[in-house]
This record gives sequence, structure tokens and C-alpha cells, in this order.
Amino acid sequence: MDFSSDTSASAHPAVLEALARINHGSQPSYGADEITAQLRQRLSVIFECDVEILPVVSGTAANALCLSLLYGPLQSVICHEEAHIERDERGAPEFFSAGGKLSCVSGQHARIDPVHLKALCEKADPEFVHETPPAAVSLTNLTESGTRYSLDQVAEICDLAKAFGLNVHMDGARFANAIVNTGWSPAQITWKSGVQCMSLGFTKNGAIGCDIIVLFGDMRQRIGELRARAKRAGHLPPKMRFISVQALALLEGDLWLSLAEHANQCATEVSRILLNGELGVLAHPVEGNEVFAKLPETIFDQLRQMGLKAYPWLDGSIRFVCHWATQKTELVQLDKASSSVSIT
Amino acid sequence: MDFSSDTSASAHPAVLEALARINHGSQPSYGADEITAQLRQRLSVIFECDVEILPVVSGTAANALCLSLLYGPLQSVICHEEAHIERDERGAPEFFSAGGKLSCVSGQHARIDPVHLKALCEKADPEFVHETPPAAVSLTNLTESGTRYSLDQVAEICDLAKAFGLNVHMDGARFANAIVNTGWSPAQITWKSGVQCMSLGFTKNGAIGCDIIVLFGDMRQRIGELRARAKRAGHLPPKMRFISVQALALLEGDLWLSLAEHANQCATEVSRILLNGELGVLAHPVEGNEVFAKLPETIFDQLRQMGLKAYPWLDGSIRFVCHWATQKTELVQLDKASSSVSIT
Amino acid sequence: MDFSSDTSASAHPAVLEALARINHGSQPSYGADEITAQLRQRLSVIFECDVEILPVVSGTAANALCLSLLYGPLQSVICHEEAHIERDERGAPEFFSAGGKLSCVSGQHARIDPVHLKALCEKADPEFVHETPPAAVSLTNLTESGTRYSLDQVAEICDLAKAFGLNVHMDGARFANAIVNTGWSPAQITWKSGVQCMSLGFTKNGAIGCDIIVLFGDMRQRIGELRARAKRAGHLPPKMRFISVQALALLEGDLWLSLAEHANQCATEVSRILLNGELGVLAHPVEGNEVFAKLPETIFDQLRQMGLKAYPWLDGSIRFVCHWATQKTELVQLDKASSSVSIT
Amino acid sequence: MDFSSDTSASAHPAVLEALARINHGSQPSYGADEITAQLRQRLSVIFECDVEILPVVSGTAANALCLSLLYGPLQSVICHEEAHIERDERGAPEFFSAGGKLSCVSGQHARIDPVHLKALCEKADPEFVHETPPAAVSLTNLTESGTRYSLDQVAEICDLAKAFGLNVHMDGARFANAIVNTGWSPAQITWKSGVQCMSLGFTKNGAIGCDIIVLFGDMRQRIGELRARAKRAGHLPPKMRFISVQALALLEGDLWLSLAEHANQCATEVSRILLNGELGVLAHPVEGNEVFAKLPETIFDQLRQMGLKAYPWLDGSIRFVCHWATQKTELVQLDKASSSVSIT
Repeated sequence: MDFSSDTSASAHPAVLEALARINHGSQPSYGADEITAQLRQRLSVIFECDVEILPVVSGTAANALCLSLLYGPLQSVICHEEAHIERDERGAPEFFSAGGKLSCVSGQHARIDPVHLKALCEKADPEFVHETPPAAVSLTNLTESGTRYSLDQVAEICDLAKAFGLNVHMDGARFANAIVNTGWSPAQITWKSGVQCMSLGFTKNGAIGCDIIVLFGDMRQRIGELRARAKRAGHLPPKMRFISVQALALLEGDLWLSLAEHANQCATEVSRILLNGELGVLAHPVEGNEVFAKLPETIFDQLRQMGLKAYPWLDGSIRFVCHWATQKTELVQLDKASSSVSIT
Repeated sequence: MDFSSDTSASAHPAVLEALARINHGSQPSYGADEITAQLRQRLSVIFECDVEILPVVSGTAANALCLSLLYGPLQSVICHEEAHIERDERGAPEFFSAGGKLSCVSGQHARIDPVHLKALCEKADPEFVHETPPAAVSLTNLTESGTRYSLDQVAEICDLAKAFGLNVHMDGARFANAIVNTGWSPAQITWKSGVQCMSLGFTKNGAIGCDIIVLFGDMRQRIGELRARAKRAGHLPPKMRFISVQALALLEGDLWLSLAEHANQCATEVSRILLNGELGVLAHPVEGNEVFAKLPETIFDQLRQMGLKAYPWLDGSIRFVCHWATQKTELVQLDKASSSVSIT
Repeated sequence: MDFSSDTSASAHPAVLEALARINHGSQPSYGADEITAQLRQRLSVIFECDVEILPVVSGTAANALCLSLLYGPLQSVICHEEAHIERDERGAPEFFSAGGKLSCVSGQHARIDPVHLKALCEKADPEFVHETPPAAVSLTNLTESGTRYSLDQVAEICDLAKAFGLNVHMDGARFANAIVNTGWSPAQITWKSGVQCMSLGFTKNGAIGCDIIVLFGDMRQRIGELRARAKRAGHLPPKMRFISVQALALLEGDLWLSLAEHANQCATEVSRILLNGELGVLAHPVEGNEVFAKLPETIFDQLRQMGLKAYPWLDGSIRFVCHWATQKTELVQLDKASSSVSIT
Repeated sequence: MDFSSDTSASAHPAVLEALARINHGSQPSYGADEITAQLRQRLSVIFECDVEILPVVSGTAANALCLSLLYGPLQSVICHEEAHIERDERGAPEFFSAGGKLSCVSGQHARIDPVHLKALCEKADPEFVHETPPAAVSLTNLTESGTRYSLDQVAEICDLAKAFGLNVHMDGARFANAIVNTGWSPAQITWKSGVQCMSLGFTKNGAIGCDIIVLFGDMRQRIGELRARAKRAGHLPPKMRFISVQALALLEGDLWLSLAEHANQCATEVSRILLNGELGVLAHPVEGNEVFAKLPETIFDQLRQMGLKAYPWLDGSIRFVCHWATQKTELVQLDKASSSVSIT
């Protein structure tokens, strides 16, 4: 019963096969190879527009590099107070922006509250030299609470951002989980709603280590700068094709979406088990591959003794994460364990 | 006849097999996995001492992260004026050290001249607040000119560094090429000679993307800081085990050394061909997997028209790089081309 | 009726006289002069211990330079969410620390709430590589709300900090206002309570531009690094003696304290006038040279039309600042204006 | 006989008088005051065009802040290998540019050699992601060797820079010394020749601490960013008017030029004395207020024993610096000492 993280899973076999398949001959280094070119074309089709891309090996690298195009040391990026970039990246955005600030807003279920966002933007005065004005908004989809932004919610944030002259970045470390079965296309929920650039995560989706920075529209003109920033950060590995091919393998036949669907279904099942067993209540709606459940400590202890792996979260709930490789047997075990827990 | 770079080669099949072999089950993330632990043990055996390690995906990341332990924004690192960290990393050391300086010295065949090094150190006054004093020396082995440092040469640099209170980093992007068949052990030419930390490169040796930062002696106490710096730089990928296993695969049965030996032999053969054909002269001794030949432009043009891929180098020579996958047929082709060149 | 700021005042005549008095002959540059040495001795007497000092020209410079000794890019400084370093210095701490974070806590009247501080410290795990752990606490005395920390309150913060291994910085831009007539000595409320270093402000006290970084105890060993950081930041002006002498002039005969006393008395008078006139309520206790009053907008408008200069503050109140040069006539005018305001 | 530095002199009495003259009443803070506005107007007249300005307290601050408008962390600034920004500012340009590089060229008498500059520019390829391309050129006038650039020489550098798309900064820490009695106007030798911005030094000219960043032409649009960068660096002191007024005092009645003329004449006299006495040879032409003389060590020792204060320079010569307050008696003493030195 390992629900600790979607980063602790192995890689999908199709990813390994793809690596082996391209492992022959010579290719130009540093992203000038054919595979990376293919990935760019593939993502341009998926996003229904010409995109520029840069594959990197971690979500932190994708977020921080992408954000460094949007703000500098004199500016800030607005994000939710529980955002990964604020809480879990050891100051990577500050590093890559040479000391820019993150301005945090609150909002239920880790979604940015548009009212708070608007208030913060209205207060900001770029001409007032003493305060750090915002230059961009970063929203996370799935959020850190496992919830998704609806099409309308993304558009509302983007419209507000635009009204104040801010660019929008989407941290899509779990983007596939956020869009699968929603009927919203990748294009609709990103650039068509007003997102300028994103971190498109495949690592949690089934890759070895593959997160793609995607630039839309005018932002594409920054690809040269992005590559220079990546080189400077050690994120332009010579054999980049072996990163790019991981995304290609997962995009093939919409594997990325079916893997996300599996993970999401497993999470729904986890929440069903916990609620059925009346072990606790959900801290947030389950809209992706994560369940956040408020469990009494005695119950959590019993479950752990029965083999559960899951971590307490910032908000006091227990986080259960499912992924592409979550087994039916683990759900069955959790169901059994859940039934045998003594609630007193 | 592709002698363009050892970074354009594919990966050795053993590396791909190793990836597939470990691709099952769950493992703790961010380097807390068993594979990375095994690599640490394996490298401790190879270096005959307990080492701390951090696997990353590029040589630039390895160099810049490792150097960031050795100097800060108020200090400098002394290196050769042609060193990769000075010329080819888009300011990565400056980025990771928050604006520290590189102080360059000259020296034949891209080796640091101890006389220049000593002069620079003697001139430096750490108490003089206006100038940036050195905190460390970085030497590259193989050098950027394809030459190696002998055991005595490394020791001389390290002794000088120690006398002035400086730490020593070795950029070992082509370390296997530098030591194979020399009789000098990895331990002898590094920490036993006075090196405190190194970038141990496997990417050019046959990996997909794998460079290991190795900390010796007291420097091991900095592993926590190093991991924090890596996280902050996006260089702590969740599934780190897939990087670590690449090095393990190449170390198995001394494959790394036999691959380096093959590359070095090919380079020797390239130089023999060029000299036999009287096409030019060597700019530097051939002591690894690279040949730097001063060729008349007309000859270089003819060779390229016959299919040669090789780049002009900073010093005006043409660089031929061999690697683990360099084919005998490419050498035969070069020999033929060389014979048919018209020298006028 | 100018209550806009204590930074818009001119300098006390004694400061100008002191400048003229030392303006002859040659002196060693960059702080090696006799005047700066005298200031160090004088402050060592005032603080009842040997101190190291660095005079700079702004409070922002003093804060950011001093904090850069306490935390680096991998760490954070805990401060109040309304602290000057968080709100009003355009990211100076992030600049000087190369991208470290500020971790904000709340607390009434802009004082750090020890309960919040403790909670934040307990949650922090320096070994957890993903989050940025605190390295220091910065408290502001007078606070941004014009309140002071009592001796017990400073000690409580410092004890907590010490328990978690954190250093303590005091932003004393209005230090004289905070201690005058309290009976607490400069030594008691700083190093004897556990403060390691401070920004001691004279600019708002009557200088032209003079804020002194003061290092206590072990922190004195960092003076060399501090000077190097200052040089690198353009804050080691050649004729530093002209900064140092400003502080000397204000310390002479405890002028700094009598000027602060005047400013504080004026503020008390301002609050009396506003309360007497029943124009509004105080947002914070008046414990220094600042009054924060919640005034109906119509009243504030009328006062401004009668010549009042004062700014709305972050918390919605109106801030009235008095200083060494605040005139009795201005208080009389305010009293008259206050009486003639129509409250409807 | 103090020829140690023009930074160890006191301030001209007119500067102190000006400070006293404006020391009354309240003024808006942070440069929004009338005095600073007057200085901008005055400099617009002197430079025969509308300029934007920012007064700071040191030449290092002026250089580093001004350069931070011209290059970022991905770029370099080309300067002479002996430039103050490279040698004497403890990495300030790297700090303010967040880790950009300085690319050094050589040239006689500390003037940038246009041939070297051109070669460096031609080699640079902004599209080549591995190397750091230049974004600007910084030239120092007077140079570090006390020589001046002629109008033609400045224009040649600027034309080259323009041809390669680079901006030009002039470090004018001793600008008055460079132009006095040349017949070249401030406008001609700066923006009319192609300089975009400069550090205009008054500290060595007779101020307490006053260096003005001057922006010409399109660069004026960057004034808002410059002020934000200054605030962030602690270089926006509240009572900025006391810095501005120093420059105003020195510009009044061309005092800055007559003081520079005095210093230059004294230097000419120093060189005459040294050459007459056949004590040594000049290392560089004397074109300002500095003399660099190659003296036998025994002679230098004797002179020092007779009371000479002067420092050995990087190039092995002895540097004699004259300034506005250099006394005739000091020259007479040097003459006497010079005559009595025993040359053997």
C-alpha cells in the first residue's frame, strides 16, 4: 500500500523501449537533434499551435527556468501560498530570477482566489520604487491540494492578469491528471485561456525524468534566452534526445492520458474506501490522482502498521497519491485495512 | 567520419540494459534510493576511501554545483584560461556562486602553469578589500587540449594550492580517458594528490547523461548543503536512481576504462593517419581521445567534402574527437580521405 | 503641518558643524580613518562592550548588508509581515543574500508574535532539502506600527531564536525613539537580551545619511567579510569619515536621545490632539515618534485641505510622523485644524 | 608629501558651505527634492542635452549600477584588463548584474586597443549558447594609468561598439581631469561620440562622496529601473539632496574644472621633478592628475624615509596622485627630497 508519491514510481515500459529504440548513431548535441524536433512538432499538434519547447529533468527546473523569463530581480510572481514554487523548491525561483520575490495569495483548495489576486494587483504600483511589483502569475494545475482549475477559473485568472499587464505561467506537473476526461483540450485550458507558458510534467506521469517547458505565442521569441539560461544552469545536457523521447513515448497513442486516467480512478477508489470506512473526511475534492483525508491520528497509525505508506500534509490531512503503476492489489489491501481499523 | 564530439554519440547498450533492469517497483525519491547508495559504495571502493556523491545530468551542472561549495560571491576560482568553466558554460560558475569570479592563468597545452599559479597566489591579499581573492583552484583532466596531467603535475598544483589555503576541484569530464593505461589509480591522481572534490564524467564515456560530483575527506561534510543547492537548481530529480545506475553500469567490469581505452586508441590512430599523410602538425600531444591538428584550410575543406565532421578549435587547430562508439570503418575512411587529399 | 516622514527633515545643525570641523587634511580612505575609529570606541562605550561597526548611508543598506552575514541563498530570515525589509526595500535582502527568502510571521502592532515564531521554527526541518529553513530572526524596534518591544519581549524572541539555533538582527532605524525614557540601556535591549547585530539608524534621528551596522560578540569576527560585502555593493565610500562623524555628532552629549525625546513628545501631542478632537481612534499605541490614527476619509480630506501632510498606511490608518525638527507651530496648527474639522 | 590618493583628501570648502546652505525645512525624500532636480537641469546644460541622473556615494556604486542597465547574467561587458571595474571593485559588476562576466582586452597605457576589441567582438556569436556574448563596452577616462582618451579614440571605440550592437559606458571617476584644457566639451567626448551612459565622479574632484550616473538619449527611459535597482541596493538614501548639492557646488562657476586643472598641473610638476632629478622614467604619459614612475627601489625607499606617501602600482611603477588640495609646499618638499636622493 504505497501511496507515498507519484515520484517514487518506476517508469512506464514504453519509455524504456523508446530510449532503446533511439540509441544508435550520432546526433547533434544540446537539443539540436531530430527527436527533440519531433517532440516540438508533436506538442505543436497537441496544443494546436506552433510552440517552442525545452525539455529538462525535473519539475523544479522547468518551473524556475520558465519563470525566469517572466520576472527579474526587481519584480515578483504571484502564486498560491501553498504552491510548489513557494513551498517545495528550496528557493529555486529566487535563484533563477536572481532574487525576485514570490507574492503569495490564498484561496480554497490551493486555487488562487481571484478576489485576493485582484486586491493584490490593485494595490501594486510599479512606479513606487520601494515595493516589488508583480510581473506574472503562476497557477498550478492540478493544484497542490489535488484539485483542478476549471476552464472558467483559468480564464478568470488570466483575464485578471492581462488587465494588470501580467503574464501567466502554468505549473502543469500533473497536467494530464488535471485535464483527462474533462473535455477541455490542452489548448483550451492553456494559451486559449491566456496562459503564456507552462511546465508540462511527464515525470509523475510515467517518465524517468522529463518535464517540458512550453512557450506559446509571443513567448516563443524567448527560446534563445531560455536555452542560454538553461545552459548556464547545467540544464542543457548534451544528449537531450534521451529526455525528449520520453515525452514522445508517453504522447504516443495518448498513453499520457490513459496513464493519468488510471491514476485518477485509483484515487477515486481510495477516497471511496476511506469514506466508506468512515475513517475520516476529505480535506479537498478529489479531482485528480491525489486524496487528502483528515484522519484521526490513531487511525493513521493503525493503517501504517498495516503497511500503508502515505505522508501527512501541510494542512494536517494525510495525502494519498496514486500513479500510473498503482496496483489493484494495493487498493484491495487498503480496503481490507480500512475495514479492520478500530475506530474508538 | 564523425569526429565532431564525444557528446554526440549514443549510449552504450549496457547503460540501457541497466535502466531496464531497475525499472520496477517503488523507490524513495531524490537520491534516497538503493541504487544511488550502491553507487556511493562502488565509488568508495574505486577511490579507496569513503566518498559522498551527487549524480547530475550534465558536466556543467557537476562543475558549477561542486565549485559553489568552494567559493562564494566574494571570492574567485583559479582556472586555465581555456578551461571549460571559463569558456563553455555560459557563466554557470558565476551563476551558482552568486557572482564569484574566475581568475584565469595560462599554461601550455591547457595545463595550468604552476609558475603563473604561484605568482597569482602570491599577489593576492585576502585582507585587501578591493580585490577578489582566490578560494580554490580548478584543474581539468583531460585538459581542453586533450592532454593529461601527470601524477606529479596534479600534486604540484595541489601543493601550491594548499600552501595558499586553497581547495582543489578537478573537472574530470574525461577522467577515464585521462587515467586509463597510465598506472595511476583514481585515488592517487585525486585525493591522495590533494584534490578535495571532482566532477566525474560518464556522459562522454558512454552514458545517456550522468556526471557524478564526488566529495573526498572533510568535503564530505558539505553533502547536505550540496543537496540543498542541487534542489534549488532543479538538479535533484525525483527518480535519481536512473542517473546513478548509468554510472554503475559503466563501472561494472571496468567498462568505463575499456571504453576510454578504445576512444584513446582511435585518437592515436587518427593522429597517426594525419601525420603519415603529412596533412599537418599536432597542436598538442595526443594523450586521450582528442587530436588537435593544425591543418591548412584547403586540406580541411577537402576532408569535409569527403565527409569529415570535425570542428575548428579556439587555437586555430582542428579538433578530432573519438569516443566509445567510434568505428574502425571511420578510421579507414579517414585514412583513405587522407591519402587522396591534394596538398598544394 | 508636515507629518509625512522623519526622512524628509533636514539635518541637525550639530551634524553640519561636525562635518565642517573635520574637513581638513588627508585621512586614510575606506574607513581606516581616525573618525571612524573614534565612532567605534564611542559605540563600544554606549553598548558597554567592544563592537565592530560599518557606517553606511541608508537604512536599507544597513539592513541588507547586516542580514547578508546571517543568511545565505539556501536559508530564510524570519520577520514580521509588515517589516520594512519585507515591504519597503524593493527586495534588498534577497539581493544581498543572493536569493534567500524572508519568512513572515504576524503579530499585533507589528511585533513578532512569539507563538507564531515558535510554531514556524518547530515546523522547520533543516535536513528537509525541499524547504528553506530559517537562519535568523529580524525584529524592528520601533516597529513599523510605531510600537516598541519591551526588554522582556526582545528577550523572549531572542530566547526562542537561540533555542532553534537562529541569530537575531535588530532593525533599529528608530532605535533612539524606542529606548529613550524607557530606562532600558542600549546594551540591555540588544546584546544582553540576545541580539547579535543591528542596524543603528541616525538618518531619521537628525543625520544627513548615516546608519551604522553594529556587530556584537562573536559576530565581530565577520567584520572583514562585512567590509568586503560593502565594497562589492558600493557601500565603502572613500571618505567614510564624513558618514561616521554624523553619528559622533549626534551621540555627543546624548543629542541623539534628546532629539528622539522631542520627536516622541510631539507624537504624543499629536495623538492627544486627534483623540481630544474625537477625530478618530488610534490603530496602535503611541510609543515613539509615530501616530497611526484611523480617521474617517472626510476628516482626513479636510485636514489635508488645511495643509496637513501625512500618508495613509498599509493598515488603512493615517500615519503622522514627528521628528527632531517638528515645530511647536505645527502642533498648534494641527490643534486648530482639528477643532475646525466638521464631523458629520 | 602625500601623493597617496585623491580619495584621501578632504572636501572643498564650497561643498561644505552648500550643504549648510540647503540644510533647512523639509524636502521630499529619495531624490524627489528640488536640489536633485536642479542638478539634473544643470547637467543637461553642461552636456547640451536632456539627461537623466542618479547621484550615489561612491564610484563603485555608480559603475556597477550603471552597468547593470547594460548587461545581465547571460552577457558580458568588455573592459580593459586593468579597469577599476575588473580590478578594484570586489566583483561589484558581477554582483549588480547577477553574475554577468567581464571580458578583458589589453591595450597600451590602460586604453582599450581597438584592434583587440574588434577581434573579440568578431569572435563572439550571440547565438552560440555555450559562450557569454558581450553586450557593452566600458571605457575609463582618465584611464587607470592616468592617460586620457582623445575624442577620436573615444569615437573609434564607440563606432566599433555600435557596429557590433554594443552599448558604451564611460567610467568618469576622473572625468574632469580628463577633459580640462583639452578643448573637448563634456558633450563631445561622451554622447556625441557614442557613449550611452557614464559615471561622473565628483568624489575625487573635491566632494565628500558624490558620483553621478548620467543617462543619455534612449538610455534615459531606463531611469525608473535604475532607481528601483538603486533602492534594492541601498543606494537611494532618503536625504539624497545632500549628495546632489555637492555636485551642484562643484559645477558652480566651473569649480570642478579649475580644481581638476590644479591637480593636473601639480602632477605635471611632479613628473618634471622626478625626470629632472633623473630618478626614473615615466611608465605612462602624464595626461591628468596622476604620475606613474618607474623608480629604483632604493630611490623609492629613500623618498619614503623623507616623508613621501605614494603606492606601488600593479605595473611595478610608483603612483603619485595629486588632487584639488595638493599644496605647493608638498611639491617643494618633493623637489628637495628628489635633489638629495643618492642614486647609486
